[in-house]
Amino acid sequence: MATTLHVCITCRAGQTIPEGEPTPGSRLHRAIAEIGAPPGVTIVPVQCLSACNNGCSVALSAPGRWSYIYGRMSEANAHEIVAGAAAYAAAPDGIVPWRSRPEIFRKQSLGRIPPIASLPEAAK
Amino acid sequence: MATTLHVCITCRAGQTIPEGEPTPGSRLHRAIAEIGAPPGVTIVPVQCLSACNNGCSVALSAPGRWSYIYGRMSEANAHEIVAGAAAYAAAPDGIVPWRSRPEIFRKQSLGRIPPIASLPEAAK
Repeated sequence: MATTLHVCITCRAGQTIPEGEPTPGSRLHRAIAEIGAPPGVTIVPVQCLSACNNGCSVALSAPGRWSYIYGRMSEANAHEIVAGAAAYAAAPDGIVPWRSRPEIFRKQSLGRIPPIASLPEAAK
Repeated sequence: MATTLHVCITCRAGQTIPEGEPTPGSRLHRAIAEIGAPPGVTIVPVQCLSACNNGCSVALSAPGRWSYIYGRMSEANAHEIVAGAAAYAAAPDGIVPWRSRPEIFRKQSLGRIPPIASLPEAAK
């Protein structure tokens, strides 16, 4: 299943970051990239997930599935994030049983969005 | 453009709601439905947008567009929410200029999720 794990790389997580220093968001992205994408998952850096009051943030999405966005993440959570993305990709419908979700996903959900209606071309 | 405005109807917004009383989420949905959907928008009630710490919540999505989720909404915001949904639907790419967004959308964003990759059928 074509799952995307978006990682906000511009996030400053409320901190003042000296010019030239990596943002907390870019550090999170690097930590996740170093672990590597699980099967069926593509890791995509993105500029701002508009969760600035709850940064850093990551989002999981795939065609025909609920999308999820999580906040208050740091590079210390990289392994849990990758495990959560793997579980989402592996679940037949993207609905991971509650107890199988990483604790940070259970406690730090910012929101979820229902599957987007099929593109007209796909509905034919 | 096939825009969906999802409204969480199960949200209690942190309140204790006596059994049989409408939830704040269902009141918000009713207020929005009474105003009516703007052109190109479908209003869809949904059970839980997982934004419970920031309820009530609504989400905007459409095929090929960024999705947005907003929190700390109440029925007092129904007109602004409908206006924001109309602007999203009317924008050619769903990207509404910052200043044209309702203030509650500018200040109460919980997150946004990039467009989801096309369904395989649509990519042919």
